[in-house]
Amino acid sequence: MYQCSLERMSDKIKTFAKFGDAGHGGITRYSLSKEAHMARDEFVRRMEAIGAKIECDDCACLYATLEGSDPNAKRIVMGSHCDSVKNGGNYDGIEGVMTGMEVLETVAAENIPHKHPLTAMIWTNEEGSLYPPAMMVSGIICYDYLPDSLKPNFEYDNMMASKPMDESPYANFGEALAASKYKGDKENRISPDKYCAMFETHLEQGPILEDAGNEIGAVQLVMGMFNYRVRFHGFTAHAGTFPMAKRHDALHAAADFLCELHKAYDAYNAEIVEKGEPEFVFTTGEIYVHPCIHTCINDEAEFSLDVRHPNPDVRAHCMDILKEMAGKIWQQCTCDIEEQWVRDTVYFDKRLVGFVEESMDEMKAELGTKWQKILSGAGHDAQFCAYMIPTTMIFSRTKDGLSHCEPEHVSDEDCTAAATATLNAVLKCDASDEF
Amino acid sequence: MYQCSLERMSDKIKTFAKFGDAGHGGITRYSLSKEAHMARDEFVRRMEAIGAKIECDDCACLYATLEGSDPNAKRIVMGSHCDSVKNGGNYDGIEGVMTGMEVLETVAAENIPHKHPLTAMIWTNEEGSLYPPAMMVSGIICYDYLPDSLKPNFEYDNMMASKPMDESPYANFGEALAASKYKGDKENRISPDKYCAMFETHLEQGPILEDAGNEIGAVQLVMGMFNYRVRFHGFTAHAGTFPMAKRHDALHAAADFLCELHKAYDAYNAEIVEKGEPEFVFTTGEIYVHPCIHTCINDEAEFSLDVRHPNPDVRAHCMDILKEMAGKIWQQCTCDIEEQWVRDTVYFDKRLVGFVEESMDEMKAELGTKWQKILSGAGHDAQFCAYMIPTTMIFSRTKDGLSHCEPEHVSDEDCTAAATATLNAVLKCDASDEF
Repeated sequence: MYQCSLERMSDKIKTFAKFGDAGHGGITRYSLSKEAHMARDEFVRRMEAIGAKIECDDCACLYATLEGSDPNAKRIVMGSHCDSVKNGGNYDGIEGVMTGMEVLETVAAENIPHKHPLTAMIWTNEEGSLYPPAMMVSGIICYDYLPDSLKPNFEYDNMMASKPMDESPYANFGEALAASKYKGDKENRISPDKYCAMFETHLEQGPILEDAGNEIGAVQLVMGMFNYRVRFHGFTAHAGTFPMAKRHDALHAAADFLCELHKAYDAYNAEIVEKGEPEFVFTTGEIYVHPCIHTCINDEAEFSLDVRHPNPDVRAHCMDILKEMAGKIWQQCTCDIEEQWVRDTVYFDKRLVGFVEESMDEMKAELGTKWQKILSGAGHDAQFCAYMIPTTMIFSRTKDGLSHCEPEHVSDEDCTAAATATLNAVLKCDASDEF
Repeated sequence: MYQCSLERMSDKIKTFAKFGDAGHGGITRYSLSKEAHMARDEFVRRMEAIGAKIECDDCACLYATLEGSDPNAKRIVMGSHCDSVKNGGNYDGIEGVMTGMEVLETVAAENIPHKHPLTAMIWTNEEGSLYPPAMMVSGIICYDYLPDSLKPNFEYDNMMASKPMDESPYANFGEALAASKYKGDKENRISPDKYCAMFETHLEQGPILEDAGNEIGAVQLVMGMFNYRVRFHGFTAHAGTFPMAKRHDALHAAADFLCELHKAYDAYNAEIVEKGEPEFVFTTGEIYVHPCIHTCINDEAEFSLDVRHPNPDVRAHCMDILKEMAGKIWQQCTCDIEEQWVRDTVYFDKRLVGFVEESMDEMKAELGTKWQKILSGAGHDAQFCAYMIPTTMIFSRTKDGLSHCEPEHVSDEDCTAAATATLNAVLKCDASDEF
């Protein structure tokens, strides 16, 4: 069993945290920004130092490759993103990039034999913070392999013309790309012709590993989900002149529905957990009312509903509960629901997941590393890549489960453990006859 | 008993509905806009036609006066506003202006003897649609008589510099005023030196008269109120990665609180109504959450709470309920509340209310008009004026209780009935030794 270097990983963590340092512990490093280019320059500098070959594709994804002993073998790639949300942390995305670098540096430093070319990769614009949507470029690159329901969200011309957030210095994503020195050739894109496996290492972004006392996790799948708008229709009237019993208050309806939905979903969750299923998670993140004036009763209210679980039967039952509730009258208001999107569960490649679990078992035996199987509730580039080539993910323990915020933290030791697990899983993949 | 003219009132209603006609039944007639100036021009044209003297004050309030027989008597004024909210109706404000005009036209046409000068008046910027706050100019003019707690909201220099809404062609209210041909002299302001009584006729803006089958109402008071912000503090986390039991979801907390507040307030309302009190009304018109992203749990949520009732003991008990609830933990979130403003009940002048009720009784006897005592839940210029000179209000029946919207409607007959009630109450005031 090979081990990655804590010292080298610590140095990378410290260095990359400077690119976009927001001055209070975290970073703002939008895709294709000056700060993101500084991180890419550092990636290139370090990868060239170990003799890796640098390539860019037409979406500015950046690849550093160490050739392998078998000239016919396809590449094994370790990739994630280097862009962040606004006032994000020092780990989301970049941890997976540093892992790819660390694996290659370890292979180079210890002269580890390998048949397949090994590639460290930066995926462009995963967060979509300046240029929505999230996972834009993995959507573009994996487009031909995506389910039909997802394709409309990642059509190339639309993505290039994507309306940016106000902070963008460019009119759209296409212009930002054209201005980047990292825009290269389409033929360099990751593809099934040249690549046989993708590993993405990432912080968990939740508290499950920490609560269980485990350092790392072997990710099995990305949970399927549905995202709906739930809307209520009443009528508006003056706060001072309209008797209570005659009101059709859309916000009261929405609040009542939201509380009852919690009760119904909590009860169903208890029922499935009793049967050994993991719990589903559900979130009402957005709410809007109209006219939203303190002296008026609201005639319209709507909130978003995001439900995630790996088992399609559980999601279907959650949908049944939602539909039944939406058919009722709430505080004298009508209700309707509208699908925003639905995604099936993405199961990672069983063989790659097996390599990860074997590596983690070896680490447990040799180093005392504690690990577990885990599910991903969040979306990642790996989820789209999995439609195209065999893919899997490794998670590392996240302090307090916090992510997408400046206190986001993974210890240097846990980052290194995740890199070691990745290295050994990659080497098992390299040694396998199936890849 | 004198009667106003249905024909003349119908003509005014039809004519004034053109000034700011939004093309689908209602009007947009912002204060000091071109459309509002057209309405003022029409007011002047009609009032000059009956020989009334026209004056303007420094806030562009417009006065048309028929002299009385007693040179020492103070003026009796009938006033309301001619500005509207965006896409408002054809009655809010302008009904009271048309009533003043109709009363003067009736007095002139029928040569009705009167001691006091009788004045029809347009108050400027009641809605505050372009230049907040609402009731700005009555706040300025009655400033010296306002309770100390209200004064900071109506300080002259602040009002002149009031930041307008985006649609304003002027940088602030002061500039809009300076550009108006109706800006006159400060000495023309309504004041206790020259005015002895103010009547404001207005549509009810609620369904109480209609539901009771009454055409007009004798307003007793404007309900006292309190307006608070209710805030919840949790923490944010990712919708896909954070277990349900560990969440501190501020929107769930707000929804839970809102539903429980409805239950507690509904119970208390039932209790006071049982004891013969009118019900209090409460409204949660605004809600905001942070970060308001569909993939995030909200860490902050807040809503507005507006509570209105004439009895200070009832309002105090409502406040106690609110404070007790705010002291608890809601869905693992803390709660705090902040006062925005508190206004005491404004009781209208008992003598003027008496004149209105006597007039309505006479109308009942002679014309079969149905009337009732009623309370005002909404604010009006009369409410501020009441601090300065004896004041009262007359309400007319409002179709479906709708107001501040294009379907707002009062029948020509009900407008005329309200004007007749105003005319006769004004004449009783004129004849009284006390004024």
